[in-house]
Amino acid sequence: MKRIVFAMIAVSALVCAVWAQAPTSQPGGEAAVAIVQGKLPPGYRDWRLISVAREEGSLDDIRAVLGNDIAIKAYRDGTRPFPDGAIIARLAWAYLSSEENNKTFGKPQSFVAGNPKNGIQFMVKDSKKYASTGGWGYWQFNDGKPLTDQVMLQSCFTCHQAVKEKDRDFVFTHYAP
Amino acid sequence: MKRIVFAMIAVSALVCAVWAQAPTSQPGGEAAVAIVQGKLPPGYRDWRLISVAREEGSLDDIRAVLGNDIAIKAYRDGTRPFPDGAIIARLAWAYLSSEENNKTFGKPQSFVAGNPKNGIQFMVKDSKKYASTGGWGYWQFNDGKPLTDQVMLQSCFTCHQAVKEKDRDFVFTHYAP
Repeated sequence: MKRIVFAMIAVSALVCAVWAQAPTSQPGGEAAVAIVQGKLPPGYRDWRLISVAREEGSLDDIRAVLGNDIAIKAYRDGTRPFPDGAIIARLAWAYLSSEENNKTFGKPQSFVAGNPKNGIQFMVKDSKKYASTGGWGYWQFNDGKPLTDQVMLQSCFTCHQAVKEKDRDFVFTHYAP
Repeated sequence: MKRIVFAMIAVSALVCAVWAQAPTSQPGGEAAVAIVQGKLPPGYRDWRLISVAREEGSLDDIRAVLGNDIAIKAYRDGTRPFPDGAIIARLAWAYLSSEENNKTFGKPQSFVAGNPKNGIQFMVKDSKKYASTGGWGYWQFNDGKPLTDQVMLQSCFTCHQAVKEKDRDFVFTHYAP
């Protein structure tokens, strides 16, 4: 009996220890934990710039791709596949013709970022946890709320398979020097 | 004679003290010092994102505007005029149609950042030093080398006067949330 009680205590202690460590030991740290919990990760707007882009068509936005420290380091060092804990964020805004800028340039040529648009997307690298989707977990937040439509989220991976080569690791965006 | 020698020593000491302090006491710190010395400020590529934009016409680029900590804080707090030491950087890249992305989307709609283009520009806020140009000094670096054409640099201020209202403080770019 004593042995059983001791074993139960030991197992409980182990479970508690693992649980207590989970938030910090997870690849991607606090940011990854927040994302998984359906919250925008604190400080993501402070992440460094990877690159910028413009999507025409139904998306019709101008966008910035930011990376946490692990992602930025991997980009700059050329490390592929990206190490666990790398997180890439895609922000986007309405593509606005700037009357103010055009007046200054004397020509209609200037487009700027308007209101946020098309949500904020995250790719979180965790080669074990997300092994079935190339080692990346995909999320989208609309107005701060997580998209829960699994079919939509699965479509992220479907598209990103276009760049599944080892030197790309499912990531479209190249680093802008 | 003794008095003159003493006065000369005192003046020399003062000059040396001022000179020795200059690099750190200048608003904008090391970054501003580097820019004034004709060097790209170390770490500017790590600055946080203010916004993104696209210029058509002869510029034909896609761009990102980054800010040092003082500039970002002022943007987020709505502080105008910007405090001394604020530095705003404008990076730009060739506007490239992305065949890879278009293939994935099934439509020609995606444009990404190519090679750096149109130089890197900086606005440095120092209300005393640059009083004659609205409190901002303007610089451009092409391939890492400072533009020295004063007529060209003066044209920066000429254009930025279009937003000289107190709540804009000569800055075109709005913060993208």
